[in-house]
Amino acid sequence: MAVYTHLSSEALADLIAHYDVGEVVSAKGIAEGVSNSNWLVETTGGTEGGTRFILTMYERRIDIAELPFFLGLLDHLSEHGAPVPRTIHDRSGAASRTIMGKAVALIEFLPGVSVDEPTAAQARSVGKVLAQMHALAQDFSGQRANDLGPDVSAAVLAECGADALAQIDPALPAVIAVAGDIASRWPTDLPQSVIHSDLFPDNVLMLGDKVSALIDFYFACNDAMAYDLAVTHAAWSFADHGRTYRPEVGQALLQGYESVRQLLPAERESLSLLAQGAALRFVSSRAQDWIDTPADALVTRKDPMDFVRRLDFYRENGAQVFGS
Amino acid sequence: MAVYTHLSSEALADLIAHYDVGEVVSAKGIAEGVSNSNWLVETTGGTEGGTRFILTMYERRIDIAELPFFLGLLDHLSEHGAPVPRTIHDRSGAASRTIMGKAVALIEFLPGVSVDEPTAAQARSVGKVLAQMHALAQDFSGQRANDLGPDVSAAVLAECGADALAQIDPALPAVIAVAGDIASRWPTDLPQSVIHSDLFPDNVLMLGDKVSALIDFYFACNDAMAYDLAVTHAAWSFADHGRTYRPEVGQALLQGYESVRQLLPAERESLSLLAQGAALRFVSSRAQDWIDTPADALVTRKDPMDFVRRLDFYRENGAQVFGS
Repeated sequence: MAVYTHLSSEALADLIAHYDVGEVVSAKGIAEGVSNSNWLVETTGGTEGGTRFILTMYERRIDIAELPFFLGLLDHLSEHGAPVPRTIHDRSGAASRTIMGKAVALIEFLPGVSVDEPTAAQARSVGKVLAQMHALAQDFSGQRANDLGPDVSAAVLAECGADALAQIDPALPAVIAVAGDIASRWPTDLPQSVIHSDLFPDNVLMLGDKVSALIDFYFACNDAMAYDLAVTHAAWSFADHGRTYRPEVGQALLQGYESVRQLLPAERESLSLLAQGAALRFVSSRAQDWIDTPADALVTRKDPMDFVRRLDFYRENGAQVFGS
Repeated sequence: MAVYTHLSSEALADLIAHYDVGEVVSAKGIAEGVSNSNWLVETTGGTEGGTRFILTMYERRIDIAELPFFLGLLDHLSEHGAPVPRTIHDRSGAASRTIMGKAVALIEFLPGVSVDEPTAAQARSVGKVLAQMHALAQDFSGQRANDLGPDVSAAVLAECGADALAQIDPALPAVIAVAGDIASRWPTDLPQSVIHSDLFPDNVLMLGDKVSALIDFYFACNDAMAYDLAVTHAAWSFADHGRTYRPEVGQALLQGYESVRQLLPAERESLSLLAQGAALRFVSSRAQDWIDTPADALVTRKDPMDFVRRLDFYRENGAQVFGS
């Protein structure tokens, strides 16, 4: 959530000259992205169309070898009409370049703001767009395995260890056994596509009730479409740090999704378990980050208990919520 | 250099509704400003004109009682044609509002980028615009004393103490005596105006060789115009962390300034001492920040020696450089 690298206006102008977008008029480092540096760049415009772009510098976490998958996916989805920013290619056709030893990509700027407390109408729109994206991604040729499945989450929690987890919250060690159970029952035969797999409200830009853009596809992978819906349900349908389920939001999300793509009976029956797996994933990643981040660091640590509460909710109420 | 406060899109929409600028289309937290949070906000437009604005939230350091001075100065200068962003007033005419207990102001967005290595042509433009600003600020009615004069710098260094300064660099304690000498000889009878007093390249937006905006006036105060020119000289005319003086840049800055406003003989004769005082100010503030900031903090500490080198340069060569 910061700009990690200083990029001089001179270096920026040199970089932008490789694209047919005109000359730089303005550039602001923006506080967006989990582990990348991002700039909002305005230009005089060229044959690529548009005058505003997001320049992303890949700082860490992202394997550069996977950039063609992520950037190609943006192109595929935007070409087919999904509200996803397209990648701007340089004059030689390359989707990414290297500057100061780091990979960078120039990406279309799309308007919209991320909502903090989504309404049912907004959740319905997100459900629709998610289903459209799943349909459009079916014939994307790129392949990327999901490296954050429930088996990985279970292993991460086990590695953290009960003692360290108990220091975060006394209720956390019990999740280790739950994780193993979820992983052992995980469905493997549900219909797949390329999924976003991290569609929090942060990663959706909206204008009123309309979705203007899905962004930040750097967790995208091939996996069950219903799992993506479950991740989105866990991310959108709760208030007060996971203490309050908002049924009107959760239902609107599901209805919006099914208005475009009807779930198969097997998918619907799996949703409760998939939602538990979705919650589990964020419990494990947050627990690991919590343990890895000193308490006095300037970075705000995210409380894994926010998702333990969701996990507990789905274990108790999942069948009812998802009508399975 | 960060966004310190989370501002929800809902809170932002509520805030922007108090201004006649239309509805929010986009909002990005930007990595700008020393101790404020800033967002680049795009709207649908209203009677205020323009669709892009910088929303600044005053987090600390700035005394809220001084906001009318800073925001009124922007209005005065922009009304009189200086390339300075104007303050957008709300429907009741107020220049600032309060949100989440903090003061915020909506400020015109101006294009341009900050240069890292200014050319002589760019320095000449900055000199011209600085002189124009000094002339236009003459009849601004606001008053604010300079609280960062050489007496303050000398006191700050003395409070740091020779031992703590020596831990930063063995050459630093000697500046304590130099500071006292500069403060004792400081001129008090030079012509005054409102000065920017912090016009580093960061605080100037340029399009090519043209200045599109002077920004970040939060150190502005009533003081000698020649001191502002000296600060700008110290900030623009050196490369390699103060090791290399760039005579063509320094001369172009002075020539640009004098093409608009001729310096009086007393100002020219004082420039060497004023430039030493300018360098001293950044030595003292950087030394204090260095001592106050833990070595393992995520914030990059700025080396006070960058300005000790400039101070030494002006002590040795100031008379020659400024032709006094």
